[in-house]
Amino acid sequence: MGNAIKPVEWMGDHVKILNQTLLPSEVKFMEIRTAQQMWDAIKMLCVRGAPAIGVAAGYGVTAAMQEHVDKPVERYHAELEKVIDYLATSRPTAVNLFWALDRMKETGSRHREDANAVTQQALEEQAKAIEQYEENACIAIGENALALLKDGMTLLTHCNAGGLATVHYGTALAPMLLGKERGVHFKVYADETRPLLQGARLTAWELQQAGVDVTVITDNMAGMLMKQGKIDAVIVGCDRIAANGDAANKIGTYSVAVLAKHHQIPFYVAGPVSTIDMNTPTGDDIPIEERDWEEVSCGFGKRTAPEGVKVYNPAFDVTPHELITAIITDKGIVRNPDEAGIAEVV
Amino acid sequence: MGNAIKPVEWMGDHVKILNQTLLPSEVKFMEIRTAQQMWDAIKMLCVRGAPAIGVAAGYGVTAAMQEHVDKPVERYHAELEKVIDYLATSRPTAVNLFWALDRMKETGSRHREDANAVTQQALEEQAKAIEQYEENACIAIGENALALLKDGMTLLTHCNAGGLATVHYGTALAPMLLGKERGVHFKVYADETRPLLQGARLTAWELQQAGVDVTVITDNMAGMLMKQGKIDAVIVGCDRIAANGDAANKIGTYSVAVLAKHHQIPFYVAGPVSTIDMNTPTGDDIPIEERDWEEVSCGFGKRTAPEGVKVYNPAFDVTPHELITAIITDKGIVRNPDEAGIAEVV
Repeated sequence: MGNAIKPVEWMGDHVKILNQTLLPSEVKFMEIRTAQQMWDAIKMLCVRGAPAIGVAAGYGVTAAMQEHVDKPVERYHAELEKVIDYLATSRPTAVNLFWALDRMKETGSRHREDANAVTQQALEEQAKAIEQYEENACIAIGENALALLKDGMTLLTHCNAGGLATVHYGTALAPMLLGKERGVHFKVYADETRPLLQGARLTAWELQQAGVDVTVITDNMAGMLMKQGKIDAVIVGCDRIAANGDAANKIGTYSVAVLAKHHQIPFYVAGPVSTIDMNTPTGDDIPIEERDWEEVSCGFGKRTAPEGVKVYNPAFDVTPHELITAIITDKGIVRNPDEAGIAEVV
Repeated sequence: MGNAIKPVEWMGDHVKILNQTLLPSEVKFMEIRTAQQMWDAIKMLCVRGAPAIGVAAGYGVTAAMQEHVDKPVERYHAELEKVIDYLATSRPTAVNLFWALDRMKETGSRHREDANAVTQQALEEQAKAIEQYEENACIAIGENALALLKDGMTLLTHCNAGGLATVHYGTALAPMLLGKERGVHFKVYADETRPLLQGARLTAWELQQAGVDVTVITDNMAGMLMKQGKIDAVIVGCDRIAANGDAANKIGTYSVAVLAKHHQIPFYVAGPVSTIDMNTPTGDDIPIEERDWEEVSCGFGKRTAPEGVKVYNPAFDVTPHELITAIITDKGIVRNPDEAGIAEVV
C-alpha cells in the first residue's frame, strides 16, 4: 500500500479527492476548493468511510477558509463557524465527521486573538494532525486485529473499510493489508453491499490490487457460506460506536452479525477511537441517514424496480453490542463490549 | 388476476412464454416450438419459478414432439425420451421440472402400443392436467395461508413466488393476491433478491399491478426491519422440499430464515406437494445450481466488480426444517415440519 491511491490528499491549496463513485471502472480525481464542493463530495459518496470523511472535512475547512484570510478577524471566524456548521450537515451518521469538525472548531477558538494567516496555518496543521492520527490508528488497528486472527483464516467483510475509507490500511481491512506485508494471509469474502456496492466495487478492488485472495458474493449469500463452515470470522468497520458499544455501520451489517451469532462465528468491529461517541449513550440514539430511492430502484444505470413502487433505503443499521465479539480500536481491543469496556479504551 | 399476464400459455401448436428477464421494463413474449428453445428459455430464466418451469416443461415436450408424429412409433418414443432427458438438464434444483417430465414420460409409456397421434393427444392432455393441478394448488395454498395469517399483517417475501412463477395466484404471494380479492389486506416488503432481482423486478411488479401495498428493500435490510418490529411474518416459495422438510429456495432464503428465528418471527414456506421430493431425504441431498459469475459482477449492463475478481454465485440455498414454522401446501399445512409431517401431506 506504499504507493496506493489516496482517497483524500492535501495539495497545499486544495484537496484532491478520488471520486469513488466511478470505481472500479474509472480512477478520476476531483479538486476541492470550496465548502460547497466538499459538501457535495461527501454527500454524493465521492469520499466515504467514516475516517476518510473526517480527514476530508478537516482539509475541506482549510481549503474553504483560504478565501477569507484577508477579511477582518471577526469576519474570518464567523465564516469559519459557517463552513464548519455547513459541512456537518453533509452526512448524519459517521461521527468522525463531527469529531474532525470539532477539532477544527477548537483550533479556530484557540486562535481568536491571532492574525488570520496564523489561524489558517493552525487549521492546516490540525487537518494534517487528523490525517496523521487516522493513519497511525489504522496501523494500530491492524496490529491489534492480527493478534486476534490466525494466518490462513477465511474472513467475511461487509461494505468497504479499507484504505479508501480511511488513510492507509483501513480499519476492517487493516489486518488483511498489513498482514499481506508481514506474510500473514487471509482468504476474504466481500459482501457486494447493496445498494451502492462498496464491497464489490471498492473492497474487491483494493484487496485485488494488494494481492489478497478475495471473492465477491451478493449480500444474501453470507448465511449459506457460514452454514457451510467457510467463514472463520467476520470483520467490519463502523461509522459510529455508542458509549455502550452498539455500533452503526453500513446497512446489512446487523444481519451479518445475527448470522454470525447463529453460526457461533466471531464478529469483530474495527474502528479508531475517533469513531466512539461518548455523547451517544446507545445505538438507539444514532441518527440513521435515509438516502434516495433511486439508489435501490435504478442503481446500475438500469431500472430494476417498477416505476412508482415504494422503496425503503436506510444507509446504516445498528448492531447491538451483545452481538459483537470484540471492538478492535487503535488503543486496544474491547472484548464483549459494554459501557465499562468502552470507557476504558477512550 | 383474472386477466393477468400468463407466464406460460399453450397456443395449440406452440408455447407462449413471457420473457421475464425483460420485466418490468418490457412485456415481451417468445414462441417456443422446439426442445432447444424451451431448454434455453428455462436456462436463461425467461420462465422461472418451480411450478411454472414444470408447466413449461410439459407443454415444451408436447410442442417439441409435434414434428415426430409422422415417424414410426418406435422412433417417436425414442425421440420422446430424448426430449424429456434433454429438458431435464436445463435446471438442476427445481423438482417440479422432474415431476412434470416424469408425468410426461409415464404418459408416453402408457401409449407405447398406440398410434403417435393418439399419444401426442395424450401428452397435450397431460401437460394441461399439470397446468390445471398447479392452478388449483395455488388457490388451495392461498386459502391455507390465509388461515394462518391475519388481516393487516406486514409480510416479508424473498424472490418471486407469484403468478409469474406458477400459474395463477402463486404460492408465497397467493395469500396476498387471493386475500386482495377477498378483502384481506397485507403490507408487503419485497427483498430485491440479488443477483437477478426477481423481488424488485417481478414481485414488486405483480403486487403493484394487483393493488397490493408493496415496498422494495435490498436483501441486507431485512434484519433491520425485523429488529424494528416491522415484520409480522415471512412467507417464501420453494424449489424443492426434501422428505424431512428441508427446503431449497432462492439464494438468501436461508439467511432470512435465520433472521426470522432470531427475531421470533414465523417463517412460512409455501409450495404445492409437487415440490416435495420424497426421493431426496434431506436438504444436503439437493443439488445446488451455480450460475455464471457475470450475474453478480455485471448484472445490470454495468460492471460492478473489478475485472478478474473471483465471484461465487450459487442460485439457491437450503433452509433446514428446524427454521421453518410451517410448510403451506395445497393439501394442508405442515406445522414444525419433519419426516412424519411431510409423509402425511404427500
